[in-house]
Amino acid sequence: MARAHWGCCPWLVLLCACAWGHPKPVDLGGQDVRNCSTNPPYLPVTVVNTTMSLTALRQQMQTQNLSAYIIPDTDAHMNEYIGQHDERRAWITGFTGSAGTAVVTMKKAAVWTDSRYWTQAERQMDCNWELHKEVGATPIVTWLLTEIPAGGRVGFDPFLLSIDTWESYDLALQGSNRQLVSITTNLVDLVWGSERPPVPNQPIYALQEAFTGSTWQEKVSGVRSQMQKHQKAPTAVLLSALEETAWLFNLRASDIPYNPFFYSYTLLTDSSIRLFANKSRFSSETLSYLNSSCTGPMCVQIEDYSQVRDSIQAYALGDVRIWIGTSYTMYGIYEVIPKEKLVTDTYSPVMMTKAVKNSKEQALLKASHPCHLCKAHRKHMAPVPSPRHLAEQDMLVFLLHRDGTTDITRTVHWGTPSAFQKEAYTRVLIGNIDLSRLIFPAATSGRMVEAFARRALWDAGLNYGHGTGHGIGNFLCVHEWPVGFQSNNIAMAKGMFTSIEPGYYKDGEFGIRLEDVALVVEAKTKYPGSYLTFEVVSFVPYDRNLIDVSLLSPEHLQYLNRYYQTIREKVGPELQRRQLLEEFEWLQRHTEALAARAPDTASWASVLVASTLAILGWSV
Amino acid sequence: MARAHWGCCPWLVLLCACAWGHPKPVDLGGQDVRNCSTNPPYLPVTVVNTTMSLTALRQQMQTQNLSAYIIPDTDAHMNEYIGQHDERRAWITGFTGSAGTAVVTMKKAAVWTDSRYWTQAERQMDCNWELHKEVGATPIVTWLLTEIPAGGRVGFDPFLLSIDTWESYDLALQGSNRQLVSITTNLVDLVWGSERPPVPNQPIYALQEAFTGSTWQEKVSGVRSQMQKHQKAPTAVLLSALEETAWLFNLRASDIPYNPFFYSYTLLTDSSIRLFANKSRFSSETLSYLNSSCTGPMCVQIEDYSQVRDSIQAYALGDVRIWIGTSYTMYGIYEVIPKEKLVTDTYSPVMMTKAVKNSKEQALLKASHPCHLCKAHRKHMAPVPSPRHLAEQDMLVFLLHRDGTTDITRTVHWGTPSAFQKEAYTRVLIGNIDLSRLIFPAATSGRMVEAFARRALWDAGLNYGHGTGHGIGNFLCVHEWPVGFQSNNIAMAKGMFTSIEPGYYKDGEFGIRLEDVALVVEAKTKYPGSYLTFEVVSFVPYDRNLIDVSLLSPEHLQYLNRYYQTIREKVGPELQRRQLLEEFEWLQRHTEALAARAPDTASWASVLVASTLAILGWSV
Repeated sequence: MARAHWGCCPWLVLLCACAWGHPKPVDLGGQDVRNCSTNPPYLPVTVVNTTMSLTALRQQMQTQNLSAYIIPDTDAHMNEYIGQHDERRAWITGFTGSAGTAVVTMKKAAVWTDSRYWTQAERQMDCNWELHKEVGATPIVTWLLTEIPAGGRVGFDPFLLSIDTWESYDLALQGSNRQLVSITTNLVDLVWGSERPPVPNQPIYALQEAFTGSTWQEKVSGVRSQMQKHQKAPTAVLLSALEETAWLFNLRASDIPYNPFFYSYTLLTDSSIRLFANKSRFSSETLSYLNSSCTGPMCVQIEDYSQVRDSIQAYALGDVRIWIGTSYTMYGIYEVIPKEKLVTDTYSPVMMTKAVKNSKEQALLKASHPCHLCKAHRKHMAPVPSPRHLAEQDMLVFLLHRDGTTDITRTVHWGTPSAFQKEAYTRVLIGNIDLSRLIFPAATSGRMVEAFARRALWDAGLNYGHGTGHGIGNFLCVHEWPVGFQSNNIAMAKGMFTSIEPGYYKDGEFGIRLEDVALVVEAKTKYPGSYLTFEVVSFVPYDRNLIDVSLLSPEHLQYLNRYYQTIREKVGPELQRRQLLEEFEWLQRHTEALAARAPDTASWASVLVASTLAILGWSV
Repeated sequence: MARAHWGCCPWLVLLCACAWGHPKPVDLGGQDVRNCSTNPPYLPVTVVNTTMSLTALRQQMQTQNLSAYIIPDTDAHMNEYIGQHDERRAWITGFTGSAGTAVVTMKKAAVWTDSRYWTQAERQMDCNWELHKEVGATPIVTWLLTEIPAGGRVGFDPFLLSIDTWESYDLALQGSNRQLVSITTNLVDLVWGSERPPVPNQPIYALQEAFTGSTWQEKVSGVRSQMQKHQKAPTAVLLSALEETAWLFNLRASDIPYNPFFYSYTLLTDSSIRLFANKSRFSSETLSYLNSSCTGPMCVQIEDYSQVRDSIQAYALGDVRIWIGTSYTMYGIYEVIPKEKLVTDTYSPVMMTKAVKNSKEQALLKASHPCHLCKAHRKHMAPVPSPRHLAEQDMLVFLLHRDGTTDITRTVHWGTPSAFQKEAYTRVLIGNIDLSRLIFPAATSGRMVEAFARRALWDAGLNYGHGTGHGIGNFLCVHEWPVGFQSNNIAMAKGMFTSIEPGYYKDGEFGIRLEDVALVVEAKTKYPGSYLTFEVVSFVPYDRNLIDVSLLSPEHLQYLNRYYQTIREKVGPELQRRQLLEEFEWLQRHTEALAARAPDTASWASVLVASTLAILGWSV
């Protein structure tokens, strides 16, 4: 049998069984949560003792004369995944879920998290911590008003609150006679001390030209040209999101799990380029690539990461106007720029430019797709069972390929699916098809059309609780904002890439997701007009064993069979060229045209067990 | 032939031929617009000479030391239709379109309006006025920055700018060294003087109990209970929208075109009720209905309309918190309440409560529907041709019934429709059906699902430029916010009424709109869950002559034939009971089940000419 080749997946290929089987064997110890009402309290072994660190934190709070201290779950750059050294909330509470805010007063400590994490929090937190089941600034402030006295000071690290989050705390506290106090030294870090994991320090390297759409000089000129055209004539753009700096300079590193970024800010002015990062991380080659030995308008001056706040503050003393994207700028930067010197948009010009791929970037992203038959692992999914369960029971499994350029998910069944599983799978598939083939006017926002991916589920009283898709980066974030189908995403435009990923999850039993990657392209319509549609660029068959053909309309069948034909044309010849004959046969079998009746019973899964790994690594 | 009975339509029945025929006869003089580049300029007879009023306005501006003065198109209550005495922008410019903002500087004068009104503005404005073709605060401010000196003061009437609009001007002017100046005396009114139409002064009357869902005392208690439950414990609710006060007290008048309201504000506190209106308009009966001779918490104290700003300002001196809906509150009220004493939501609790109809209100609204076969007249539609064109040519005509409780539109054809007209009509019909039959989760916002009404049009490269629906009031606004399908509408809930009204408009040639009224009801789904759908409560057949059955799916046909069956069941027996046999036969003919092939050619329109008026007035 052919062996796996991993060459096509530069950063990460996961084959991870995110499975839902019968709940019993998977959900071992599911009820083993703390009980703080007994004496002594019952604490599962998974609980972390936080008494000492809380005492130390309260000492720090006293030094600052604080009645309360907020510990958010973010880092200073709104990263989707955060580094271990930034997991302050997890360290101080014991609770490791990705979302949840902690607040400590002199007498109490509490965590607010959403329903995904309630059980996990009860297993991981000791009885020092209350668990609150709402989220957002309002319930936190409501609690604070009963816990801290009038005149009380509520401390926070301004680099961990976005402008919006700070505003929601500020609004909720208005008129309450409690004061928000920005403290740039993080108090949890002081307590964490030498135990805190180090900040990553691997080299920062330039991406090979073959993998970039434009040079950094071209990109810098493009942003400056947008500054000049802007009505408010900003003199500088400040970039806070790590992907912005990485994209602008075509630089990469591995500071963040799953994302090839490095801790940085950029202040791009009309006459200078200032990159804030750890200078020791740049090789002399990279420094020369950046023209960092000169000081002209096309020379990148490297300044220390820790200097960003002071440098911005000093720059803002001049006759300047600083353009920021409010979605990714933290309060710690915002508060040092006088309001009248700010030019604000939701997203920076780099975010907006990056969202639309030029033809070279489109080609790079498309070329990366025929090689994927991979496996899903999302931080917001259920716990992963051990692989030994795979053979033991009927089970649905997520397959995903994730790296810097794509994100594909397929659900397959390792046995005989129930009628309900087939119905749910087919309704998810219909949603994927209905959105993928939709024709819509140029500049429509994703939010306006994402319900097409849900309608077939809604019809039967089913739904899913996550977004329907997200932008895809070029060797950047697998989840790239601001493209997508949520209310804060920008309008669809030709050249954007997005995932399309409806799903269905039966709590504790099974889960389904069918995720494809699509390029936004112009649509040819019968009457002339500026219309768009999606061109699906991921080529992986769906599990025939799970499709209930009787639920598909003739249009759905036609779409599906055309898609299968495309898969054969794109993937088949390459498999033959490499003499992967077993895989080629597998592909032919799973892309046979479906007829308007029950599908044949040959399960994809049974074949996949034998041959997936071979297919997985087929590189383009 | 039976005669028309108008009893079912308490305020207004319009039969108005909003027709698009061949453009020539309808569009007489279409190109007769001003030409300011010749000397002397060419001015059509429709132009208004504004030189004297502009001179007088500039004198007023000089008195206030203003470099510019903004004249919006609004009134003090964000009414959809405004009274003649509020048409300041129209009076000062000559341009009578419903949307458009004027700005006057010491040297120039300009109007900003959207594409619907460009031609009209060029026909109505003299050469004192520049026409600008963008809208919003940003282009206005951009122009202002070039026209007025640094340090310049920009005056505005704070009762004509909503909080949001004021904020957008304020934001656009930030850092520009120009100052927004709130002037409560309207300068246009000073110039307008005795020529200004009087403010309406007809009696304000209480609605008969048969037409109300609850007494005003029940409604007042309900709002107070919401105040008590509110986390921020407001001590008062301020109501600025006229429909809020009308609804709260079950009072009506006819101050506003098409809407049975009267100029008013309400300050409902925990211990008092203050209604700001012209006291002379209340009869002793109505005063007694309002308990206006006492001062207890259930007594309505009438204060003069003009006192509202001073009274709010005085009330805000106390230890109070005033709850407002920001969407309907003008800056003139907002600026006198200290920020820390404001409790803000997008919509007031009255707006939110009013949106969901109780069972009595639902029954009233449903009962009003079998009687309508009526005719559309919208302020944003094309000019209305004279009825003599009706017989002369092929033509599509809008039919609508509009009063305080419903809004139905049907398009019919008076001759032989073209293939394109049939295709467009059928795609609009599919949109109406697809949205009407949609099943969606409780609390879904209309914005998320309105594209279902557009998909069939988009497929062919067609679209429409207006919203897909709006709330319907109980003897209130025919367009009732905040229910509907736009981004600022609230989530759908059981008991709301909304119109569903996709359309298509071929500029200068023809227009189509199919508008029904629907109640939001619980949906029964195969699997349990909290889902909603629409129950269409308007019962008027579509024009068979315009339906291209080949475009309908079996599901569309099934839906349509079930709807026709419902019309027969709801309307037929009543027609028979009244011995309206001709109308009964007409109804039977137009609700025959459609088969999956070309429809028969008997046009609705040809029959309608003979019998519409009889049907129109059939009262329930």
